Amino acid sequence: MHVVVPFAATEPKTRLAAALSPSERSTVARAMLADVLAAVVGAGHEPTVVATAPLDLDALPIADDVRVSTAVSVDERSLTEAVNARLPNGCGDEAVAVVMADLALTTVDALETLFSADADVAVAPGRGGGTNALVVRHPDFRVDYHGASYLDHCEIARDVGANLETVDSFRLATDVDEPADLVEVLVHGSETDRAPASLRELGFELDADGGRVTVARLENSTTE
Amino acid sequence: MHVVVPFAATEPKTRLAAALSPSERSTVARAMLADVLAAVVGAGHEPTVVATAPLDLDALPIADDVRVSTAVSVDERSLTEAVNARLPNGCGDEAVAVVMADLALTTVDALETLFSADADVAVAPGRGGGTNALVVRHPDFRVDYHGASYLDHCEIARDVGANLETVDSFRLATDVDEPADLVEVLVHGSETDRAPASLRELGFELDADGGRVTVARLENSTTE
Repeated sequence: MHVVVPFAATEPKTRLAAALSPSERSTVARAMLADVLAAVVGAGHEPTVVATAPLDLDALPIADDVRVSTAVSVDERSLTEAVNARLPNGCGDEAVAVVMADLALTTVDALETLFSADADVAVAPGRGGGTNALVVRHPDFRVDYHGASYLDHCEIARDVGANLETVDSFRLATDVDEPADLVEVLVHGSETDRAPASLRELGFELDADGGRVTVARLENSTTE
Repeated sequence: MHVVVPFAATEPKTRLAAALSPSERSTVARAMLADVLAAVVGAGHEPTVVATAPLDLDALPIADDVRVSTAVSVDERSLTEAVNARLPNGCGDEAVAVVMADLALTTVDALETLFSADADVAVAPGRGGGTNALVVRHPDFRVDYHGASYLDHCEIARDVGANLETVDSFRLATDVDEPADLVEVLVHGSETDRAPASLRELGFELDADGGRVTVARLENSTTE
């Protein structure tokens, strides 16, 4: 299966601006990408990072086996156009999976559940009506990431006669967009994951004092 | 399996105050409870609603088969105390499941995945480190819902020598606490569910105009 991982290589994760400086956002975004790539390779596939600008794999915090299994393709088009250019378009084409680079909680198990769904289109929705990961086996299905993309993808599948399965996964539903999402990375990340490590290195820790869990940042831990 | 559904019968869902009046919050909370009870019964179990005040099942929007399968137990203690009083405490005790009443996206499938986990303790985490549903088979395990309860429950299980399995479900991870959560109800609720129907009756609909999906409320649809 082709596994495409779209990545905004310049100015990623702007909605984390309240918590992280631009260079810190870049560090955390690359750590999340590293975790996603490791999970894809762990699930037995060779990912292609579709990046909006050149990306140096040697500068990513990934193991050698992940590095040699990963390709980079630079594509300056919109997310929707770049993904659609890589979907199956004829009979006999291999299935294509699209996994977002900010799914920091992704595990091999979660990906295998998605990849093993045998529907024409399998979608793991994100919060807020988004589409965080999907597998496309139907030659006529195309994505549209604008707006409520999960509902749009259900409709597009209907329109082209493709059956669609929704994959129920908290890990795949959790894209890290906003400061509140950092809590999930620290709660559910494993000890070997890069994303929680990068946050801890930047001084973030869980704060459960107030009843509800938030992240707090140690004093003097900002890097800019 | 005993299935306990804790329910705050008076002034439920105060964090929805920005979107709903007190009586509307009560209506939506009861609709979500109805959906949870229907899913529990659909999964082949007889739920007990543990309510903080008397609750009239006849006033809930539930089908007859759900009503006759459901018991109500009034318990004014804290959530933690009320749940702990109902967990297994000796060898041979039946497993006990605890499913929160605001899991509006709950389905029979999601519950069956949780209920079929054979660990001593199976936990479906909620966002923000919470515990939205769990199954307890170990006689020494006790809950503590204060703070980062998911992490606390992992630690409590370790302390009493119980193995713990984390169940990865977006549906079970989605408790409806804040106005932004209403989006999930409208996106993922089925046509037969009461919670999305109650929101639509109150004038809510999805608004995908801004790129990100929110809920909007029709003018003149407030009931107070």
